[in-house]
Amino acid sequence: MSQKPLPKSHPRFSSLSQRHALEAGVKDGITHPTGLIAFGRGEAFDYLLHEKTHPFAQKAIAKAAQEIRKAKNFVISVNGNTSALCPREIVQLARASGGKLEVNLFYRSEERIKKIISALKKSGAKKVYGLKDDARVSGLASDRAKISSKGIGSADLVLVMLEDGDRTEALRKAGKKVIAVDLNPLSRTARKASITIVDNVVRAIPLLTAELKKKGAKSDAAYNNKKILRQAEKAIRKG
Amino acid sequence: MSQKPLPKSHPRFSSLSQRHALEAGVKDGITHPTGLIAFGRGEAFDYLLHEKTHPFAQKAIAKAAQEIRKAKNFVISVNGNTSALCPREIVQLARASGGKLEVNLFYRSEERIKKIISALKKSGAKKVYGLKDDARVSGLASDRAKISSKGIGSADLVLVMLEDGDRTEALRKAGKKVIAVDLNPLSRTARKASITIVDNVVRAIPLLTAELKKKGAKSDAAYNNKKILRQAEKAIRKG
Repeated sequence: MSQKPLPKSHPRFSSLSQRHALEAGVKDGITHPTGLIAFGRGEAFDYLLHEKTHPFAQKAIAKAAQEIRKAKNFVISVNGNTSALCPREIVQLARASGGKLEVNLFYRSEERIKKIISALKKSGAKKVYGLKDDARVSGLASDRAKISSKGIGSADLVLVMLEDGDRTEALRKAGKKVIAVDLNPLSRTARKASITIVDNVVRAIPLLTAELKKKGAKSDAAYNNKKILRQAEKAIRKG
Repeated sequence: MSQKPLPKSHPRFSSLSQRHALEAGVKDGITHPTGLIAFGRGEAFDYLLHEKTHPFAQKAIAKAAQEIRKAKNFVISVNGNTSALCPREIVQLARASGGKLEVNLFYRSEERIKKIISALKKSGAKKVYGLKDDARVSGLASDRAKISSKGIGSADLVLVMLEDGDRTEALRKAGKKVIAVDLNPLSRTARKASITIVDNVVRAIPLLTAELKKKGAKSDAAYNNKKILRQAEKAIRKG
């Protein structure tokens, strides 16, 4: 991969710098190359959302914080993209929520899991699940089915970010609540999740942490995820 | 990179297979890793367009074919994504149009250019420009400024696909007509090109070749690229 510095005159300097961070993730063996494609898809939707957090995302964040407070075993599922994009923010969320961290990968390898765990620990994480898989999510053909019984296996609430939709569906069928962060409100992940935050993880995760720290925070009692998704779609369609 | 076969039960099997083709391009040193991000962005827009060629793209293809017939020195600019996605189709277009092929890369290296030239030759290309750069596109800070005087340097019409917008702008300022294939009608490339085909290259390039082979083909005399872009944006927004 080229290490040539990007000319600052380039009109998408900021966006390209973000991409380079993910490229570094690939180089370090943390991010799978196809993770770059998922990132690009997210970029397109974020572009249509003017790269800002909308009210429908803020409402979903408030609802997610409420569910996290009520949960008995909240687990944050981490993959190669999120650990390259915002490892510190994810660890801060784990700390503020008292939740567990578990690495779960589509292209699973022990080497990659170890590297991601190491990156999260460098960002301040203490315990990270995922290396030893002693449980399964049923009805899932990919390696994402492999989970830890003490982590996702016994979770009542799971946060997934930048996901493939079949896993969210399988987790719901296993009786778990799922909070998803997904820039595409039409995706299966977005439609199958209990609460969908249609926003960039880089913006949404720190906002969720801040919401958890707020005293007297409250969310809409009549929260309706389908309505949130309709609002998100409208924003993308309207531009 | 994982070579594990993808479970056929995965709901996006076809889409993921395409991604694997691009991944192979990265592995072979043809596609730059950040090219995967650009591909992902395209995927998102294609998704919103229901992965089909719309009438606004067909109109742009008809107009592009007309301009190609009139051109004195038509050059097809090839990068790491397009040569991984549809090398055969690009070579067929060069043959049908009598146009030249030139490799032009953002992350330029002699090694990558040689590999891309080799891939195009395997697909039937005879001469491919780009390895020796003896001319420049003025006003362009990146390595994409490096061109061949016999190729893009003396072209009156250039086809660019999956591009960064500043190059299209610089080519226009250099007095050349530009046909762009870009799934994002809001991008700088789309807005700065003379003719913008808002479609997936994999679908658009064979259609352009077919259009060139048609006898008595005609395009709209009142072709207006801004109108085409408005129609494309409307299709994406409307869904």
